[in-house]
Amino acid sequence: MTAASDRPRGVAILGSTGSIGTTALRVLERQRDRFRVAALTAYDNARLLAEQADRFAPNFVGIVGNGGGAASHPGWHLGESCLVDAARRDDVDIVLNAVVGAAGLEATLAALSAGKRVALANKETLVMGGPLVTEACRTGGGEIIPVDSEHSAILQCITGKPGVEVRRIIITASGGPFRGWSGEQLERATLEDALRHPTWRMGRKITVDCATLANKALEVIEAHFLFGLPYDKIEVVVHPQSVVHSMVEFVDGSVLAQLGVPSMELPVLYALTHPDRVPDSGVPPFDPVALSPLTFEPLSVERFPAFALGVAAGRRGGVAPAVFNAANEAAVALFLSGRIRFAEIGPAIRDTLDSLSHLGGDNRDAILAADAAARAHVKERFGC
Amino acid sequence: MTAASDRPRGVAILGSTGSIGTTALRVLERQRDRFRVAALTAYDNARLLAEQADRFAPNFVGIVGNGGGAASHPGWHLGESCLVDAARRDDVDIVLNAVVGAAGLEATLAALSAGKRVALANKETLVMGGPLVTEACRTGGGEIIPVDSEHSAILQCITGKPGVEVRRIIITASGGPFRGWSGEQLERATLEDALRHPTWRMGRKITVDCATLANKALEVIEAHFLFGLPYDKIEVVVHPQSVVHSMVEFVDGSVLAQLGVPSMELPVLYALTHPDRVPDSGVPPFDPVALSPLTFEPLSVERFPAFALGVAAGRRGGVAPAVFNAANEAAVALFLSGRIRFAEIGPAIRDTLDSLSHLGGDNRDAILAADAAARAHVKERFGC
Repeated sequence: MTAASDRPRGVAILGSTGSIGTTALRVLERQRDRFRVAALTAYDNARLLAEQADRFAPNFVGIVGNGGGAASHPGWHLGESCLVDAARRDDVDIVLNAVVGAAGLEATLAALSAGKRVALANKETLVMGGPLVTEACRTGGGEIIPVDSEHSAILQCITGKPGVEVRRIIITASGGPFRGWSGEQLERATLEDALRHPTWRMGRKITVDCATLANKALEVIEAHFLFGLPYDKIEVVVHPQSVVHSMVEFVDGSVLAQLGVPSMELPVLYALTHPDRVPDSGVPPFDPVALSPLTFEPLSVERFPAFALGVAAGRRGGVAPAVFNAANEAAVALFLSGRIRFAEIGPAIRDTLDSLSHLGGDNRDAILAADAAARAHVKERFGC
Repeated sequence: MTAASDRPRGVAILGSTGSIGTTALRVLERQRDRFRVAALTAYDNARLLAEQADRFAPNFVGIVGNGGGAASHPGWHLGESCLVDAARRDDVDIVLNAVVGAAGLEATLAALSAGKRVALANKETLVMGGPLVTEACRTGGGEIIPVDSEHSAILQCITGKPGVEVRRIIITASGGPFRGWSGEQLERATLEDALRHPTWRMGRKITVDCATLANKALEVIEAHFLFGLPYDKIEVVVHPQSVVHSMVEFVDGSVLAQLGVPSMELPVLYALTHPDRVPDSGVPPFDPVALSPLTFEPLSVERFPAFALGVAAGRRGGVAPAVFNAANEAAVALFLSGRIRFAEIGPAIRDTLDSLSHLGGDNRDAILAADAAARAHVKERFGC
């Protein structure tokens, strides 16, 4: 017999075949006593999804794309609605949202409205719809726990401490593969260069975002909403080793930092167990001597325009962050398919923000309209 | 009108004219709304004590030594008993024990038995009488908050988290002025060399302890009692910059660290405010770029024998830590007065531990007897 509170908590993984999703399944395999996989959804990798479903026997399996493989699995739920359906289920306590890009917003809102914990790897959710998501949290009784290593680090540093004690947060940035490259070199940067991240192994879209530093802007906006901090209390410092995952300075001048070998195992695990910690062997051993030296340098805003554009959009508020996010997604897609150069991503985002600066409102319709307008603008102007 | 809970808390500073004491008075001057100086005691610096008493108007002033200056202050309390008297006062909520060496033990026990918070800068207290002090805490309802920067760092990392979540703690050591010196060079080390600490400005006795690394052994023993951790969960790593003040690894593999420019302002302040934090401007600004790089290296146990001797004494328990502490204090005193060389401190401690290994017991009398025997042994064998 197990007490009700000790029954394994049900977890839905949205995006189970991606980088975060497969990491999460490794974590959950080790933590079977505490959690069970209640639902799995994938974008279109039916083969891997089927393997995962065989192994973890979830009650719900969904696939967004109509990949040919789905037909041979009659019980699967098809189409984008499977994300929201999985997020709302009664046997789900925690929704790990690892969907790439803007598609994750509806599922996050649905889960929060149903009072669930959202372990959020889909930062676009908060960037596009920060006020909506915050409101859904408040009214639905759900909670958001970040899976980004930086935000997980900040949460770990401030857990149990009142928010008023925070003077500022310092988000670390590896600097990406182009740290130290000149503007001229960046003009010639290739897709292969951009996908060669120095410290983290991740999906292609976020890897490019790390190269442009758009990812850091998304993280600044995410931190603003997650921790309720004004933008002037959020700083970024380049830390090439990616060992210090972020830092918090308190009102008395003390700084706490969370450290570790770069690995998503911990942020995923912690998003499930917060505010507690459970024994786990998945995180690589920490050896400060082997990881020495740890260095810090200022971020170059001139060479990486996407960063400043994103932070400025965050400060402007309204639909500006959604426009930034959509323009970035669309421009990165064009870069990944070889239709624009690396150095054109930033200018494409700027052009879109300038052209759509008249868009107002901040409700769901306004956000979705701005998102669509930004994608259309990039496609039309830069998609050849 | 102020609510009762908002009335400034009374602080007694034992050792107010030393390095920690004067730092504490700077902190208390800035934090007059929250704390008031209720009692001050000094060893023998009557001139400075009188200045401090004029400025802070405490209800109690005591001086241990019979320095000529005391005679002109008829209200002062004289002799070693002033420490215990100050620690027990009704108008004292927090006792900052910054007495140098073993003399601080009685005052710590008195304060804890009276249910007060002891902000402990006198680590000898816990090294000599760990079980006694722990017991006094339990029965008297008092609490110990460390003022050592390393232990303050650890407390800040684990505050609000259950102790079972800690896998190990990693205490950082600057390595002292002789980091990188060969055994041969250490043979010729002078008093001046030993007092030239690379990162911290402190009193003479502790500065020598940093040079021998005896201080790190004292800190390991202190951590064992403060945090209730077995010795195999306490590690030491050399970190020459003294920016990372210590680290905690949790059971899930995550590591939290507390960082800052080397300064005792924060540990003193935090010992007063824990578990809360209050706005304070006394801690130098934190700039990770300016403090970069942060490096870590293993501690050389061969060249600094006092470290391993101290940790072994801690593991042995009973009166062994008291013998180690007293032998170290006596040997350092001989070194400071020019009667033994730096390289003779370690062997003097080893000789004392070996010669007194028959001493048993762990009550107060046994500890005080062991303390006295160790001092006598060092004086007789090495005091020429």
